[in-house]
Amino acid sequence: MPLKIGVIGTGMIGEDHIRRLTQVLSGAEIVAVSDVDARKAQAVADRIGARRHETGEALIADPNVEAVVIASWGRTHAAYVLAALAAQKPVFCEKPLATSSADCRRIVEAEAALGRRLVQVGFMRRFDPAYVAMQRLIAAGRIGTPLMFHSVHRNASVPPSYIPAMILDDTCVHDIDISRWLLADEVKAVTVKSARRNSKGRADLADPTLVLLEMAQGGLVDIEISVQIGYGYDIRGEVVGETGTVALSTGSPVDLRSAGAVSGHVPEDWRERFITAYDEEFRHWLPAAAAGSATGPSCWDGYAATLATEAAARARDSGQTQTITMIDKPALYASPNGDQGPERTIFAAGG
Amino acid sequence: MPLKIGVIGTGMIGEDHIRRLTQVLSGAEIVAVSDVDARKAQAVADRIGARRHETGEALIADPNVEAVVIASWGRTHAAYVLAALAAQKPVFCEKPLATSSADCRRIVEAEAALGRRLVQVGFMRRFDPAYVAMQRLIAAGRIGTPLMFHSVHRNASVPPSYIPAMILDDTCVHDIDISRWLLADEVKAVTVKSARRNSKGRADLADPTLVLLEMAQGGLVDIEISVQIGYGYDIRGEVVGETGTVALSTGSPVDLRSAGAVSGHVPEDWRERFITAYDEEFRHWLPAAAAGSATGPSCWDGYAATLATEAAARARDSGQTQTITMIDKPALYASPNGDQGPERTIFAAGG
Amino acid sequence: MPLKIGVIGTGMIGEDHIRRLTQVLSGAEIVAVSDVDARKAQAVADRIGARRHETGEALIADPNVEAVVIASWGRTHAAYVLAALAAQKPVFCEKPLATSSADCRRIVEAEAALGRRLVQVGFMRRFDPAYVAMQRLIAAGRIGTPLMFHSVHRNASVPPSYIPAMILDDTCVHDIDISRWLLADEVKAVTVKSARRNSKGRADLADPTLVLLEMAQGGLVDIEISVQIGYGYDIRGEVVGETGTVALSTGSPVDLRSAGAVSGHVPEDWRERFITAYDEEFRHWLPAAAAGSATGPSCWDGYAATLATEAAARARDSGQTQTITMIDKPALYASPNGDQGPERTIFAAGG
Amino acid sequence: MPLKIGVIGTGMIGEDHIRRLTQVLSGAEIVAVSDVDARKAQAVADRIGARRHETGEALIADPNVEAVVIASWGRTHAAYVLAALAAQKPVFCEKPLATSSADCRRIVEAEAALGRRLVQVGFMRRFDPAYVAMQRLIAAGRIGTPLMFHSVHRNASVPPSYIPAMILDDTCVHDIDISRWLLADEVKAVTVKSARRNSKGRADLADPTLVLLEMAQGGLVDIEISVQIGYGYDIRGEVVGETGTVALSTGSPVDLRSAGAVSGHVPEDWRERFITAYDEEFRHWLPAAAAGSATGPSCWDGYAATLATEAAARARDSGQTQTITMIDKPALYASPNGDQGPERTIFAAGG
Repeated sequence: MPLKIGVIGTGMIGEDHIRRLTQVLSGAEIVAVSDVDARKAQAVADRIGARRHETGEALIADPNVEAVVIASWGRTHAAYVLAALAAQKPVFCEKPLATSSADCRRIVEAEAALGRRLVQVGFMRRFDPAYVAMQRLIAAGRIGTPLMFHSVHRNASVPPSYIPAMILDDTCVHDIDISRWLLADEVKAVTVKSARRNSKGRADLADPTLVLLEMAQGGLVDIEISVQIGYGYDIRGEVVGETGTVALSTGSPVDLRSAGAVSGHVPEDWRERFITAYDEEFRHWLPAAAAGSATGPSCWDGYAATLATEAAARARDSGQTQTITMIDKPALYASPNGDQGPERTIFAAGG
Repeated sequence: MPLKIGVIGTGMIGEDHIRRLTQVLSGAEIVAVSDVDARKAQAVADRIGARRHETGEALIADPNVEAVVIASWGRTHAAYVLAALAAQKPVFCEKPLATSSADCRRIVEAEAALGRRLVQVGFMRRFDPAYVAMQRLIAAGRIGTPLMFHSVHRNASVPPSYIPAMILDDTCVHDIDISRWLLADEVKAVTVKSARRNSKGRADLADPTLVLLEMAQGGLVDIEISVQIGYGYDIRGEVVGETGTVALSTGSPVDLRSAGAVSGHVPEDWRERFITAYDEEFRHWLPAAAAGSATGPSCWDGYAATLATEAAARARDSGQTQTITMIDKPALYASPNGDQGPERTIFAAGG
Repeated sequence: MPLKIGVIGTGMIGEDHIRRLTQVLSGAEIVAVSDVDARKAQAVADRIGARRHETGEALIADPNVEAVVIASWGRTHAAYVLAALAAQKPVFCEKPLATSSADCRRIVEAEAALGRRLVQVGFMRRFDPAYVAMQRLIAAGRIGTPLMFHSVHRNASVPPSYIPAMILDDTCVHDIDISRWLLADEVKAVTVKSARRNSKGRADLADPTLVLLEMAQGGLVDIEISVQIGYGYDIRGEVVGETGTVALSTGSPVDLRSAGAVSGHVPEDWRERFITAYDEEFRHWLPAAAAGSATGPSCWDGYAATLATEAAARARDSGQTQTITMIDKPALYASPNGDQGPERTIFAAGG
Repeated sequence: MPLKIGVIGTGMIGEDHIRRLTQVLSGAEIVAVSDVDARKAQAVADRIGARRHETGEALIADPNVEAVVIASWGRTHAAYVLAALAAQKPVFCEKPLATSSADCRRIVEAEAALGRRLVQVGFMRRFDPAYVAMQRLIAAGRIGTPLMFHSVHRNASVPPSYIPAMILDDTCVHDIDISRWLLADEVKAVTVKSARRNSKGRADLADPTLVLLEMAQGGLVDIEISVQIGYGYDIRGEVVGETGTVALSTGSPVDLRSAGAVSGHVPEDWRERFITAYDEEFRHWLPAAAAGSATGPSCWDGYAATLATEAAARARDSGQTQTITMIDKPALYASPNGDQGPERTIFAAGG
């Protein structure tokens, strides 16, 4: 019996999740959709045989909707998540959980009050086979205690809708979450340095940017954010431990020898690079949601990430290191970050 | 509306396909199963809510069964495929299509008489993202006309049920099929050389073995078959063209630096190495079968592979190069081998 | 006619240079040695048929000595370099040029007053084939203007004589020099962060440490210094440009497949990793010295490196970013840093 | 006291060895040269201050010549080697030792009669750091007993002077020697297959060619010879053992990320690829020759290689496998092939 899902937001990412839930994965049925663009939503609803709701709230209230996917504009997430929690319906919420840490905190407190997890946040990197392999090798003690993490996040280009703030809250937020997950730790302080500007890029973007995280237990993280590097979408990372390191490898499936070079392919964009991770995060979410629960990236993770991007924005604007103070962690989220890996066996754990 | 499928054979590979069709992919429903082990079949039927048939023939005849997956013992394939063709039901047949070229020929002729393709043969390598990337780079002319192919097929170990003949007809058959696909050509002659025997392995196995294929258009293929090499399951290949080459890369997702070495993981077995390929071949088969048709590896491919493994066995026994004579290729199979790639977009095409 | 050389300092590095000049390279003859350990110096002198001098100054004054190699304790370098400049004899001086920027400045001014270069400083990385290939690709515009440099400097272990200050002035100094060379720029500000301490290492060492350089033209450099990581001596680096990047590759000559892994060797120590670079820096120095001149890393480079390590020490102690003010660059050193590559053809320029 | 050397042959390879012995390595002095082109020889003699001899025989007889380097046309080698043996002067002889196995046999018998080795043959691959690392890992038992070797020898292009016979006796001869060395075994039989011809290359060359060696102890070797592949000079190899394999790695010093690809450099030609190996073989020869002896590749190795290339030519012409019969191995050459590695420490032994 497939899970009956309502999808709020039928834009690019929402459409992609609908495709995934209807054509790629088993166990799901989309029964309702809504979008601020009513015509768009109606067209989608007609195509897949779902009901269109005028509002996200109405969709959440629909008794036929057993679980909710939130893929609307970020500023709308908080209200929908809170409504779904009130209705006690499982949620998959695209990142960010909410655009302010205050809203994130409200969500954390609401879920904690409920006493059980209902929300999985869309930090899909935690489901990427390579990051999973890194995390497992670290958790298995293969490099000793992790002390540093070097993260690189490069986009070939950004669309016109990409505004300067997104360097931190849309791009770097992924590196922040994966840092917390790999090091099983919280961010304590953030420093931001802008490099010489890429003269081939837009004048309004501080590109590239270097973000430095100091973690609560003393780990250091440096993150390169380059958003207009042209050559491809390149996600790299190396965790440095006491006795060794583990790093994402290049990952090209084939080597081409031609014209004086041996070369591998670099992905064009995030869709290509993380196609498996997006499938896996939903493969992970579906059975948990069907059981009226949630695992994987939590509201606490969403709160921590938004808090850190807010601190990063202050650090960039002030030129000073900014420290972070978190609320006490509710017992609901007591398990270490590092424990929230995917349940499905992912092979190729390295070494 | 999911496709109603009957599965003949509920052994290891049959069970794995049932898992794939029920838990991983969308669009399929298993309505019937059968197996020579009636208890095993009944247990599976009970678990997934399917009907058990006493025989494969009865399953094929079941009006509720719209398409058939054949995963039984190789010697039984031919009869089931012919029965399904007679019933005009789409078939996914695990390799080999049939264990003798005479049977394969009968199947080819039956399907050709029908005038449309109904059978996809389980040569899953053609759906592996890395082989797909190789084939596309070749087809795109990136290395010029292909002239040679070096193929390496290594198993860490083989089970006790692995008999000497399987080196050629169970293991090497994959390399033969992928050679035909990558070079878009037919095998014209086969030579087999046994190397010094691996003294750590079984005395009855000629391990490793070198198989040399001469292709109709002059291409040369050398295939290393090592079946007890201990260190892992390692599939490698490089196609050599007039101006360049393309090779499978190592493929480890992460690099571990520890104890004086930087190392990547080698898969343990075929399940780990080809998990994506198995998923993809069924993702490819389902919509074609639902439309009452088939694409991908054909009965002709199954015929050609069995013909070549028969020649290889003669070459091994005689110590002489054996040539191959094929029947005329029915028009149904007229498209070049190289055209039968997966329809779904697979990224990372290399270079 | 070989160049007649006097070597001051016959400790580990001095002995290695003597071996290099007498057994590996052509064109050199060691005619004189001196060391604070007179017995050690005498033994060396006897073995290679050279004269022993009581002091470095006496060696420099020896009319038979045409050129001087300084490989003594760092604090003694300044006086010897100044004496050799006064005697107008070509010098190869191991790094550091001098242990204080004030002494370095005196040397720069003395050489500038002379009006011609006589000193090559021992920054051997500039002669490593891989760094040379990086520098050439950057200079050729293959990645656009360089904007960032990620540098990693890892030692498996350090000897008991390694004191905390050496993290910056003995280890990191190499990364500082190579940053200046690759980016063809000067260091403007330095920030130092200590990570969670490697608990498997000595309690007195801030290991690992992250050093952040801001360059005059806006480039950013992050340097990981790990000195007790156990697994090997690992030097890595990637320069990030406007359209691409260039990185040191792993460099293992062979891949071993064994026990579930494909692995490459990591060098044990700097002798293994930079054996070619040490040979090349002397192959570069000898003809220049024979011509009464010098090219390659200059006194200006020595001054800049010491200035930056002094700033790094202040940054570490204060927890604050430290800025650097340099004297005006004498015309003698006018050529950009990036122009001072080795003259000998080094192949394998990448891509 | 440098070794006084006479060089026979001042063509391309002779000139390169003269450069090496006078400018790169220590311990050598060229005192005499000769060449069929007297003007060329005189120009070289004048430039380096050596005496020119009218004939190679006169050079060998010159009492001032302590050791002889033979770099003349291959057909002349036998006579010069025999003359040097008669004069009991150490020899470095470029490959081939002689162009017929009969001549090689005469040389072997002459040296054996002398009772001590005087000749090192120019199989420089045995001094390449990557091949040395392979050989050491094999000898150390890291892959178990070696059973197979896959060798790839690709030239971007060949000069007009390259005649069809050279595919086997000039190009493949290197792979034959290195096969014998890595497997510590002799060639027992040779099979040659020509692939579909590279249509972008010369019509008179069977390019590419596949050479199959069966070794005395049962090892199998397949060798791809491609001599006009355009993209670069690419030497690859993998030895397959009972429990693992060891392979030459790509070897590019840097990775360039640009325009959708991550790429490494492929050498342009053998000078670039084997520059270190050529230096090392002479660094190995000089002290042995100075001691009136020789180690490294021997006359026996030269004999074995020529015997195998003769068999390969017969195999190509007849289309049949050709077996090889060797004379009994004189006790002088009793040490296994695998023992004849370079004496100098070469780091990076892999894994």
